[in-house]
Amino acid sequence: MKASNVTMKLHWDEVILAALKEDIPWEDVSANAVVPEEALGHADLIAKADGVLAGLPVFARTFALLDEQTQVVFHAAEGDFVTAGTRIAEVTGRMRVILSGERTALNFLQRMSGIATYTRKMADLLAGTHTKLLDTRKTTPLLRSFEKYAVTVGGGSNHRFNLSDGVLLKDNHIGAAGGVRQAIERARAYAPFVRKIEIEVETLDELDEALDAGVDIVMLDNMKGDALTEAVRRARGRAETEISGNVTQENLQRYVSLGVDYISSGALTHSAPILDLSLKHLKSM
Amino acid sequence: MKASNVTMKLHWDEVILAALKEDIPWEDVSANAVVPEEALGHADLIAKADGVLAGLPVFARTFALLDEQTQVVFHAAEGDFVTAGTRIAEVTGRMRVILSGERTALNFLQRMSGIATYTRKMADLLAGTHTKLLDTRKTTPLLRSFEKYAVTVGGGSNHRFNLSDGVLLKDNHIGAAGGVRQAIERARAYAPFVRKIEIEVETLDELDEALDAGVDIVMLDNMKGDALTEAVRRARGRAETEISGNVTQENLQRYVSLGVDYISSGALTHSAPILDLSLKHLKSM
Amino acid sequence: MKASNVTMKLHWDEVILAALKEDIPWEDVSANAVVPEEALGHADLIAKADGVLAGLPVFARTFALLDEQTQVVFHAAEGDFVTAGTRIAEVTGRMRVILSGERTALNFLQRMSGIATYTRKMADLLAGTHTKLLDTRKTTPLLRSFEKYAVTVGGGSNHRFNLSDGVLLKDNHIGAAGGVRQAIERARAYAPFVRKIEIEVETLDELDEALDAGVDIVMLDNMKGDALTEAVRRARGRAETEISGNVTQENLQRYVSLGVDYISSGALTHSAPILDLSLKHLKSM
Amino acid sequence: MKASNVTMKLHWDEVILAALKEDIPWEDVSANAVVPEEALGHADLIAKADGVLAGLPVFARTFALLDEQTQVVFHAAEGDFVTAGTRIAEVTGRMRVILSGERTALNFLQRMSGIATYTRKMADLLAGTHTKLLDTRKTTPLLRSFEKYAVTVGGGSNHRFNLSDGVLLKDNHIGAAGGVRQAIERARAYAPFVRKIEIEVETLDELDEALDAGVDIVMLDNMKGDALTEAVRRARGRAETEISGNVTQENLQRYVSLGVDYISSGALTHSAPILDLSLKHLKSM
Amino acid sequence: MKASNVTMKLHWDEVILAALKEDIPWEDVSANAVVPEEALGHADLIAKADGVLAGLPVFARTFALLDEQTQVVFHAAEGDFVTAGTRIAEVTGRMRVILSGERTALNFLQRMSGIATYTRKMADLLAGTHTKLLDTRKTTPLLRSFEKYAVTVGGGSNHRFNLSDGVLLKDNHIGAAGGVRQAIERARAYAPFVRKIEIEVETLDELDEALDAGVDIVMLDNMKGDALTEAVRRARGRAETEISGNVTQENLQRYVSLGVDYISSGALTHSAPILDLSLKHLKSM
Amino acid sequence: MKASNVTMKLHWDEVILAALKEDIPWEDVSANAVVPEEALGHADLIAKADGVLAGLPVFARTFALLDEQTQVVFHAAEGDFVTAGTRIAEVTGRMRVILSGERTALNFLQRMSGIATYTRKMADLLAGTHTKLLDTRKTTPLLRSFEKYAVTVGGGSNHRFNLSDGVLLKDNHIGAAGGVRQAIERARAYAPFVRKIEIEVETLDELDEALDAGVDIVMLDNMKGDALTEAVRRARGRAETEISGNVTQENLQRYVSLGVDYISSGALTHSAPILDLSLKHLKSM
Repeated sequence: MKASNVTMKLHWDEVILAALKEDIPWEDVSANAVVPEEALGHADLIAKADGVLAGLPVFARTFALLDEQTQVVFHAAEGDFVTAGTRIAEVTGRMRVILSGERTALNFLQRMSGIATYTRKMADLLAGTHTKLLDTRKTTPLLRSFEKYAVTVGGGSNHRFNLSDGVLLKDNHIGAAGGVRQAIERARAYAPFVRKIEIEVETLDELDEALDAGVDIVMLDNMKGDALTEAVRRARGRAETEISGNVTQENLQRYVSLGVDYISSGALTHSAPILDLSLKHLKSM
Repeated sequence: MKASNVTMKLHWDEVILAALKEDIPWEDVSANAVVPEEALGHADLIAKADGVLAGLPVFARTFALLDEQTQVVFHAAEGDFVTAGTRIAEVTGRMRVILSGERTALNFLQRMSGIATYTRKMADLLAGTHTKLLDTRKTTPLLRSFEKYAVTVGGGSNHRFNLSDGVLLKDNHIGAAGGVRQAIERARAYAPFVRKIEIEVETLDELDEALDAGVDIVMLDNMKGDALTEAVRRARGRAETEISGNVTQENLQRYVSLGVDYISSGALTHSAPILDLSLKHLKSM
Repeated sequence: MKASNVTMKLHWDEVILAALKEDIPWEDVSANAVVPEEALGHADLIAKADGVLAGLPVFARTFALLDEQTQVVFHAAEGDFVTAGTRIAEVTGRMRVILSGERTALNFLQRMSGIATYTRKMADLLAGTHTKLLDTRKTTPLLRSFEKYAVTVGGGSNHRFNLSDGVLLKDNHIGAAGGVRQAIERARAYAPFVRKIEIEVETLDELDEALDAGVDIVMLDNMKGDALTEAVRRARGRAETEISGNVTQENLQRYVSLGVDYISSGALTHSAPILDLSLKHLKSM
Repeated sequence: MKASNVTMKLHWDEVILAALKEDIPWEDVSANAVVPEEALGHADLIAKADGVLAGLPVFARTFALLDEQTQVVFHAAEGDFVTAGTRIAEVTGRMRVILSGERTALNFLQRMSGIATYTRKMADLLAGTHTKLLDTRKTTPLLRSFEKYAVTVGGGSNHRFNLSDGVLLKDNHIGAAGGVRQAIERARAYAPFVRKIEIEVETLDELDEALDAGVDIVMLDNMKGDALTEAVRRARGRAETEISGNVTQENLQRYVSLGVDYISSGALTHSAPILDLSLKHLKSM
Repeated sequence: MKASNVTMKLHWDEVILAALKEDIPWEDVSANAVVPEEALGHADLIAKADGVLAGLPVFARTFALLDEQTQVVFHAAEGDFVTAGTRIAEVTGRMRVILSGERTALNFLQRMSGIATYTRKMADLLAGTHTKLLDTRKTTPLLRSFEKYAVTVGGGSNHRFNLSDGVLLKDNHIGAAGGVRQAIERARAYAPFVRKIEIEVETLDELDEALDAGVDIVMLDNMKGDALTEAVRRARGRAETEISGNVTQENLQRYVSLGVDYISSGALTHSAPILDLSLKHLKSM
Repeated sequence: MKASNVTMKLHWDEVILAALKEDIPWEDVSANAVVPEEALGHADLIAKADGVLAGLPVFARTFALLDEQTQVVFHAAEGDFVTAGTRIAEVTGRMRVILSGERTALNFLQRMSGIATYTRKMADLLAGTHTKLLDTRKTTPLLRSFEKYAVTVGGGSNHRFNLSDGVLLKDNHIGAAGGVRQAIERARAYAPFVRKIEIEVETLDELDEALDAGVDIVMLDNMKGDALTEAVRRARGRAETEISGNVTQENLQRYVSLGVDYISSGALTHSAPILDLSLKHLKSM
């Protein structure tokens, strides 16, 4: 997904504002105590580690929502890889606003950039292949759109956004339906026709049944070795293939060599450490 | 802080509900397609790694907000250290509800337990000393109360919650006020009298000025070696001392040996990986 | 989609409550003036015209949100065709609550049943064929989920729910992309892989280009006569086909005879008249 | 009521924004996939049927809420009767914004114009008489103010807005109070003194009792033929008269000839078909 | 207005909950620190001054919203005059809940009872006359329904609730319209017909013009002595009369003797001191 | 606290908007009926009594939220003492907006100025001493930040804002903890370390126990005469002292003479009468 102005106006403004209220339920007592309201300041946004930037519009918007006269000039662009020490941006405006918005702006930017950085590292391992890296629904509650966007900035692709906009039938759905074919048929009859049907299969027999039922995507779960090789071979041209789970450098190489279409990883969003960034050199003007 | 019923009713219910809406904007199309509305199921919550549990009431509440008839029986308690393979809880209720709530319930529980696990590891290094481990405001936007609570479950303590309920004067505040003494005096005159005043000092001279002005807490920033030793010594009995920053096993030992009162770490909340947990063995009843 | 308890709790409760507030911003002054608070009553929900019922859970929930002790017993089921005069339900509870909730409960039920009734009429014309009737995004602002649900109750199927969960490339998208193939390729590269790609084509050349580019669904827009016949023939087995627009009994027969897969109609939701229903025989108990 | 700027700022902005979120929960995936963010476009709003325009400020505001730089220039005014083919307005701005806002903007405008068109047709039948056409509370949940406004644009008048701002005593209220007189007296004693009291009467005896009790308005329900004639005659000069129900061209003539003051019709808001309008000729600039 | 269950569910619950969140943004740190979660307690609600009770259901609901198991047993009823020392109610439940809800519950009850007490004092001066005491729109922002309700408990009556549900034409409206008659005619043509028209007049000439135009209510503004006497005389039987302004015991007697219908007083809601009440004798159980 | 732009944007805008919606749920029917939309006007804000101004930014913002083109020019400043008759401000803009916003703008300003006026009167009695006047949590539900701000404008200081940001242990907490020392220790162990601990003591023994336990603030409750004198003496240099309760000119003098640090008064916010202000001389331009 993209971070267009429309996304900002319809969705992110509301979240950013809520985050500011969380941090400033009444006032910034320290800034209000010692900094005159009209004092102006200037600060630098500095990278303290190497990584990929994601969330620059959110960073800027945080200050704008406190005071639309705050200026943020960027020296690096969304998706850029920066090294420690890089001056990423300059913030100019009321000193109180810079002080009061700093933490919230950084909390967004550091997390989003952390996800983009980690995703880039994984996605680079797939460079030159047709296999794509996907995120999952293992995102932070209330921040899914920020995180899925950060994944795309890092070079990953998005899986379904939520339980309403994609069908994924797991073993429990299959059990409830009475079999692979029945689950696929019920889903196709029920879901809006613009939905693709994805199913999780654990054996080659289940795979065959799913392919015969015309499924769109198969998730190959818990398959290993020759069975996995054979599964990918059988699905080719009949359905797209996805492998999910603990992605390591080793198994990634193997999955790619098999020609799997998609590899999904929850860690992209649930366990990426933040990218260390800092607002420095605040000076009065 | 504690996760009392009052916190749940006044604050967390709203967040959990918003998280459910984020994941189910219309309906769970997969579950609704194949699982009959009245089918009942039972599933186990299993630890897939070793760690400290935090967020069990949130986990249970997620299902209750979808359907108050869902039952969650716990076999482990908040704050327990569990090992991989432990059956933590059993969930019983409508199968659709279990399927639809699973991801959101786990997204909360895994993150909170990840924070508690990481905090416990750090806090254990301080065991037997009078030094306490603190969190920071480097929390996930909109989830601060969940995360600060998880820190306490892990054995950490809370620093201020937000910019309104604590005073912390940094170099920029000092600069704007015209000096350490002036900053402290302005803050004391301005802030509600129930607030303690904390100030960041970088030299022994600044420290002396702060102590003379009657500050309550000094954060010793960028101080090293003998200066740090001397700073802690001078502050003893006159103000509490805090050190912030990149906590490693080595510097932690040193800080403790100096007798610092508090060590704060942003990583507790911004970079703890999740604790791997899973809902398994879903069976119809 | 289905009207499960989960949909009610996560989404519809909020809308029903807002509708009640719209009608009762302070109090029901008439009822409060003359009816004692504890007076109990009983009323019948009667059909005043023939039609298909949709929205019975919403009808009942409206009263429950005012007073959970209100009882609604149904004598007909969701999706039933009822004739004028049928007693559909009995409402028992506080007389004030019955009076205060009546209009809001009926406003939902009449509209939803109107849509189901109109949809059933159209869908019956497709009975015995493989062609399916679809709704559109031409729904009442804020009530889309109620209306798309009513369409399914009436025997129709759902097209995409919103601009995020389905791709539909129209002439302007094609123009912006520089051609049919380019538009499809950009969409496939950009959209989450679980999305099908649909494109609107106006000529057989555009159709061929779309099919060659591997599109999933083609909307045959403004095609008539032999061109339309040929278009459906060419698409068969390569992509699904949809025709949209002013559906009449005549053109419907023709589209079906061509073997089109889907016919979509905005009128299902934007121009269906309500089904006339009434709350009658309110008596004190 | 009027659609002043105040109404827009206090009420309609919120509804329009909610409608946009309903249609764009994340992003417009089609537009974002193929249209460059900065591409500008121009489109025409065209009438595809004859009718009365209502909701032009809402149409324009929808685009402005997505991007304040979108320009809408109108060639027709609120309340104008336009014929099929008329170019009503030109929209200029970011092409993505035009594409993303089109459906929501039209969903409002078509419904409101449909109501105004239908109301105008009915109101014209009363032209030259003193009888006024009224709406009811049979409006679409959450959209009452848009619809009652559209009624006034079409030449109708507004009945009460909700259960709090008008008193209307029906048979159940009369029953609960123990009689016509008692109901009126209780209402007068209870309701704010700025409320008029309206009562529904079914016989001439009830009418007399109501007039004697000093009621302000009588709704003549289920009265026919001579009784109705006599009722209107008796009420003249003592109370205003209202007739409600299924308005047809025939009974309308008769009611007018009797000199009834008000005729109310639920169909104005619950069953008016939309006015067919379309955004056409989108071109890049 | 009445404080029915419907008002509580649709409106007051939301305000009470917001008030609780205002006072407990995270947790009650004092109670959570020292009181065990399961400890039960019992407390008495005691009057510390003489006055009229209003808001008992709000008092009870505040505790119920924190914990539905809290019990409140009342020994006095809404509208009762109690003397200092009276035990009004007993609260039983979790001690933490009693401590955490106490202040918010009292903040509502004391204010509402203060208004009822002050209103009763004024209304008693009108006892035995046909003149009624009215409130105004000079209420506390966001609490108007609580305050207007308290006025009725104290024996006052409600003027219009807001700018939408009543017409009151002041000198500025008259000026804009070009005269008294024109203002009345425009208002009658514009406002829903269920609204009465009230106008403020300052001279006998204006009064005559208003009466001739058929106005429903006249507010006699700034009229004194004989002019006022004459004004009330002329209006009798033709329109209701209202006097507004600084009500004192002296002018009240005079207004009553003139036979004015209504006297309105902003002080009822904007300057009534609270009724002193206290939660006492909290004991563990 | 200060009324900075940040407070306005993050918190007060929302409350002001809600207050405007409370007063204008649909439209200002009187203004819309008779005043042309584009008519411009000018009005004066006049003091009708002597007092201290608080809330001028809220007054101006109310009009700006209705129409950003409304201009408010102030002739007096926040915190100024004005005498009856003073022209405080001039409002220029659309006449409809001035009429529609007047009541809400005044409702805020009159209440806030009333609090500031009353606080100033009390605070002046403490002039020249080191004793400070404090507010309490006895504020109007939902308006606490407006009221605590008004207290500071009047020369008072703020006690804690809510139950989360300050610890105050009363007799019930002490009872639950098992004693003064235990309560203090539990609170210190539990609360974030930036909180001061305050405790209410009733005897000199309790005071000694609290001082020995290192409490930060003691509230001397129900202490009189020599005991009070002795309590203040003993606490000096060891803890700050607060006296709460019914402040009169007499006891105030005595408390000050004892050297108490803080005197808190609920009446500042719960019983201050409004300051009488009026919008006058509205003229068309």
